[in-house]
Amino acid sequence: MKNIYLDNNATTRISENVLDAMLPYFKNKWGNPSSMHSFGGDVAKDVEHARGQVADLLNAEVSEIVFTSCGTESDNTAIFGALEAIQMPNKRQFITTKVEHPAVIASARELQRRGYPVTYLSVDRYGNIDLDELRGAIGAETAVVSVMWANNETGVIFPIEKIGQIVKSAGAVFHVDAVQAVGKIPINLKDSTVDLLSMSGHKIHAPKGVGVLYIRRGTRVRPLLHGGHQERGRRGGTENVPYIVGLGVAAEQAKKALVEETPRIKTLRDKLENGLIERIPNTLLNGAKEERLPNTSSLSFEYVEGEAILLKLDNAGIAASSGSACSSGSLEPSHVLRAMGVPYTAAHGSIRFSLSGDSTEDEIEYVLEKMPPIIENLRSISPFWLDFIKGRKIDADKHSGPYAPYN
Amino acid sequence: MKNIYLDNNATTRISENVLDAMLPYFKNKWGNPSSMHSFGGDVAKDVEHARGQVADLLNAEVSEIVFTSCGTESDNTAIFGALEAIQMPNKRQFITTKVEHPAVIASARELQRRGYPVTYLSVDRYGNIDLDELRGAIGAETAVVSVMWANNETGVIFPIEKIGQIVKSAGAVFHVDAVQAVGKIPINLKDSTVDLLSMSGHKIHAPKGVGVLYIRRGTRVRPLLHGGHQERGRRGGTENVPYIVGLGVAAEQAKKALVEETPRIKTLRDKLENGLIERIPNTLLNGAKEERLPNTSSLSFEYVEGEAILLKLDNAGIAASSGSACSSGSLEPSHVLRAMGVPYTAAHGSIRFSLSGDSTEDEIEYVLEKMPPIIENLRSISPFWLDFIKGRKIDADKHSGPYAPYN
Repeated sequence: MKNIYLDNNATTRISENVLDAMLPYFKNKWGNPSSMHSFGGDVAKDVEHARGQVADLLNAEVSEIVFTSCGTESDNTAIFGALEAIQMPNKRQFITTKVEHPAVIASARELQRRGYPVTYLSVDRYGNIDLDELRGAIGAETAVVSVMWANNETGVIFPIEKIGQIVKSAGAVFHVDAVQAVGKIPINLKDSTVDLLSMSGHKIHAPKGVGVLYIRRGTRVRPLLHGGHQERGRRGGTENVPYIVGLGVAAEQAKKALVEETPRIKTLRDKLENGLIERIPNTLLNGAKEERLPNTSSLSFEYVEGEAILLKLDNAGIAASSGSACSSGSLEPSHVLRAMGVPYTAAHGSIRFSLSGDSTEDEIEYVLEKMPPIIENLRSISPFWLDFIKGRKIDADKHSGPYAPYN
Repeated sequence: MKNIYLDNNATTRISENVLDAMLPYFKNKWGNPSSMHSFGGDVAKDVEHARGQVADLLNAEVSEIVFTSCGTESDNTAIFGALEAIQMPNKRQFITTKVEHPAVIASARELQRRGYPVTYLSVDRYGNIDLDELRGAIGAETAVVSVMWANNETGVIFPIEKIGQIVKSAGAVFHVDAVQAVGKIPINLKDSTVDLLSMSGHKIHAPKGVGVLYIRRGTRVRPLLHGGHQERGRRGGTENVPYIVGLGVAAEQAKKALVEETPRIKTLRDKLENGLIERIPNTLLNGAKEERLPNTSSLSFEYVEGEAILLKLDNAGIAASSGSACSSGSLEPSHVLRAMGVPYTAAHGSIRFSLSGDSTEDEIEYVLEKMPPIIENLRSISPFWLDFIKGRKIDADKHSGPYAPYN
C-alpha cells in the first residue's frame, strides 16, 4: 500500500530532528521553567534559545516572539487582544477578508455578535483583493485589519506590504495570519508594516499544539490567557517546553529549507498541476497562477464531488484534501472558493494538493497515473457530467444537498 | 548529587507509560484528526478514546470533556465564556476568593477592568472560606462563581459541594479550578453541583501544554478560541493529538494511583511535616491540618527568607518551592499566605513541599536531615531572628524590600 501524503497544508510530518530535540524534555528535563530551583531554571534557558531560533526565521527581535498553543490562539489573541487594548469608542471597526482561515472568520463573527462593526473584503476570481476596496473601507474608525499572508486552500499570496501601508496610514493595527506562509516563502519583519503575525508549529514539521504570536515592539495587545507571568505577562499558562524547543529546531530547519528545498518543491507542484490539467478535461486551477505558495495546488474537477475523489485517492494511498484544511470534516462548500465565485459545479469538485520537502518525483508520477481514471470513473456516474456532455443546461436550483448553489 | 523532587504541585515528571503512548503520534500517526483521509481520521478515534479515559477519572460524560492547551486556558474559557454566554445586563457579578491561582485572579482583574462587578471572598488563618460571607455576597445579580477545589500553595480543600449548593440556589454558574485536586483526591462530577471544572495534564504526569475543561451538559459557554469545528465547536485549533493521548493514559493511571498510591504519599508527607516541626523551632504549618491535599505541606520557617532556603535546598539536591507554584520567579510574598493573615516574618520564610507517587522514604529522611542545619545557619545571620531571640519587638515599617509588611 502506497502512503503518499499531499496534505501538508493541513499538517506536516514531525521531523526526526524536532523529535530528537524534544525527547530529553519528556524524559529528564521536565521541570517548570518558572521554578526557582535549578531543575526548573535550566529549561527556561532552552525556551529562550528556541525564541531566538523563531525570531531568526521571521527576522524579528527575540522579545517580539510570544509562544502560544496554536495558530488559532495566536489569531484570537491578536484580534481580540489588539481591540481590547485600543478602547476608543470611535475606533472599533475590524476589517478582514472573505477568504481568511476559520480562526479569523469565526473571530470576526464573534466580534459582530459583540457589536463591533466588521467589514469583509471581497476577492476576485483569482483570489486577489482589490486595494481600492480596502482604501474605501478603512478610516480613522478602523481599529484592526487582519489579512492572511497566503491562503490555506489556494495558496494565493496577498500583497502584504502594500496592504500594510494603507493600514498604517489609517492608524490601524495590522495583523497577518501567516500560518501557511511561514516556511514556504521568506518573511522579513524587520522592515515591515506588520504589527502582529501568527504562525503555527505543525505546518513546519513541529507538532500540533504550539504556535507563535509575533508582537511588534510598541504594539499594545491585551492577553487572551490571563494568568501567571509567563511570556512576560503576555500569555499565562505553564510553557509547553518540549514543543517550544521542537519549534525552535523546526524554525531553523525551515529557514534552511526555504533556500535548499523550495525550488524543488515548486517544480514538483508545477509538474503535478500541469500534468493533471493536461490529462483531465474540465480541470480548473483555483487562484492566481503566479502569486501563489510554491507547494499548493487547488484544482477543480468539474461535475464531480470532491469527497468522492478524496475517498478514491485514499483507497489508492494518496492523502489530499477538499474544502478547507482545518474543517474538511464538513460537507459545506469551501467559503474561499465561494468568495472567489467559482461555479458550484467546480467548487464541489475541488481538491487541494499540498507538498512538502518530503514529496518525491515518484509520488507525483503515481498521482498523475492514478488521478485520470478516478475522475473518469466518477464522471461516468455523475448526472451533472452527463448533462454537461449532452450540452444540457444545469438548473442548480432544482438540486438540494451538497450540489445546491451557494447563498 | 542527590535529585529529590518535592515540587510536584508546580509540575510532575512525565510517566514512562505516558511517553510510550505519545511516541507513535510523533513518529507515524501525525495526521490531522479533521482530515477526510484515513491517515488523519484514524487518529481522531484515538482522541475520542482519551476523552473517555478523562471522563472516567472525573466520573463525567464523554461529551462533557473539552481538551484545551492548559489549566490557565480552561480557567479563562470557563470564566470569560460563561459570562459571555449569559448576556443579561443585571446578571454580571463574578465571585471568587482571594486565594485562587493566578489564572483565576488575573481573569478576575481583567473582568474588573472591563467593568464587571467582582467580589473576592476572604479566608481565615487556616485558609478556609466563610460560607456566610458567600451567602451575603451572592444574589440574583451573580453570574459566575469560581472557587478552587484545593489550594496550590497550602493544599487546603474547599467544601465544593456546600459552596455549589449556595451557588446553584442563586442561579449562578459554578466553576471550579481543580488543577491541584484532580489525581490527588477523588472527583465525582456525576452527582455534583459543579458546572465547569478545569484540570491540567502536567500536574498528573502528562506533559505541560494540555488541559481539560469539563462543561456540564446544558451549561452555556462561549468559546475562548474561535476557529474550526474541533471539540464540537467549543475550542478551535488543531488538536494536540500526542498530548491528548498522553493525558488519557495519565488520567487512567491517576485513577488507579488514588487508591494504590495516595495513602503512602500521605504517610510520607506527614512524616516530613511532623519531622520538620519537631526538629526546627518556630516552624508553622500553613493551612488547615485535616482538610488538605495528601501530598502538600506549606511550612513557614519564621525569621528567614524563603528564597535563601530554596537556594540551600537546591545546593543539597532538593527541589521545593516558595510562594506560588507558577509565579515563584517573583519575589512578592504569596497572595495566599497574605490573605490568610500569616505574619510577614513567617510568610516570607514559607516553603512548599509537594510529593508524588515518585517520592520515597529515603528522600524524606534526607530532607529531614538536611533542613535543620539550613534553617539554623540562615537564622544565625538573620537580624530578625536575633531580635526575636533577644525578645526585641520587630518594627516592620522600618524595613523595606522583601521583608516589608503587606499592604
